[in-house]
Formats: sequence, C-alpha cells, structure tokens
Amino acid sequence: MNEPDCLFCKISAGEIPADIVYEDDKVLAFRDIAPKAPTHILVIPKRHIATINNIREEDAHDVGLLFAAAAVIAKQEDIADEGYRAVMNCNEAAGQTVFHLHLHILGGRSLDWPPG
Amino acid sequence: MNEPDCLFCKISAGEIPADIVYEDDKVLAFRDIAPKAPTHILVIPKRHIATINNIREEDAHDVGLLFAAAAVIAKQEDIADEGYRAVMNCNEAAGQTVFHLHLHILGGRSLDWPPG
Repeated sequence: MNEPDCLFCKISAGEIPADIVYEDDKVLAFRDIAPKAPTHILVIPKRHIATINNIREEDAHDVGLLFAAAAVIAKQEDIADEGYRAVMNCNEAAGQTVFHLHLHILGGRSLDWPPG
Repeated sequence: MNEPDCLFCKISAGEIPADIVYEDDKVLAFRDIAPKAPTHILVIPKRHIATINNIREEDAHDVGLLFAAAAVIAKQEDIADEGYRAVMNCNEAAGQTVFHLHLHILGGRSLDWPPG
C-alpha cells in the first residue's frame, strides 16, 4: 500500500512529523511547510498514488474524498465562504515535487488568474 | 438533477454548444473559451454540484471521476508526461464564476508557483 521512500507515505505513517489539521481513515491533511497563502494545506490520500496520470475509475472514491475533506477543512479554517483554490500538480511542467498525490488548498487571500 | 439556470448544466444537456473533448455517463469535458495555456480544458460532473463546499462523502466517487477523466484527457492532449495543473476554484477569493463544479486542466506550458 505504501512506498518506503515516499515522503508523504512516511508522514501518513507518523514516521515524519507534520502539522496535521485533519485525519480520517483514508485522508490526511497538514500545513504546507512553504505556505503561499495565509492558509495553505496539503490534502493527501493515505494510499499511495503517484500522479493524476495514475488515477483510474477504481480510485475515484478515494480521490473524491480529498475534496470532501477539503470542504470540512475550509470550514475549520474559516475560508469556506470567502473562497479558496484547490490545486493538484502533475509532473514537471506543473512543478510536482513529491510523487504522492496531494491537493493544495490555498485561501485567506485573493488568488489571481491564471493559476500560475 | 440539473439546475435550469446553470450554464454548465445547459452545456451538459446539449442546449449550449461547447468544444467537447471527452464525455462519459457522469463526466463532460470541453475547452475553456478563455484559455490560459495551450491546453485549457474544463472537466465537469454532469450532475450539478455548486462548489467544493457542497461536496460530501456520498459525492466522492463522482468528484474523483473528474480526475480519472483528466488522466485520459491528458493522454489524448499529449500533456500527460510533461505535466499539467488541475485547479478547482471555490467562491469569490478564487474567482469562481460558474457555480457548477469544474476542474481546470492547464498544460502545454510551464506553470509558475504560487498558482495565483
């Protein structure tokens, strides 16, 4: 299920500390260590999936749970009403650095368009 | 299921034309009319969900299918390997203008960080 050399698998297993803001059976969320907004949280599936390219129909429920968690977290962080951006990067052109799916939640400020 | 005044429900119902690049039972994808990258596609659930704030656990499968479709589309558009960014905006701070869930897929160029 988990990849021994994956940073986010290690965080998920409690082997590396993180500032955790949400956890359930399938999902973990923690603050980004290089925040780009007053609220900047990473929401990950506990199960290792490397990139969006690897998502198949049978993974859909687990991936969608990241967004159900995002809705809970946005309320917790008091950014739900004013709004926030959810971003997932795939591979080099988008700057993906950890190859374990993670949804960035950015809020607490206005976000420009285009998104990078 | 659909909202009579929703632009994306109308596109989904075929009442308003769009440059459709992918369709299955639950998901529709079409090119953004104001593209911000060489590839800029919107992936929507056919079922009306207004914002991320409205996503509950029972919606997770349908939301995750947007990413399974994104993986197929990225391959189709030949941006899968080089990479792309997937973005979903919620409410005003993020610039959400159509209140029907839509996942922006941007690729074909390098994307800066932060994402807006």
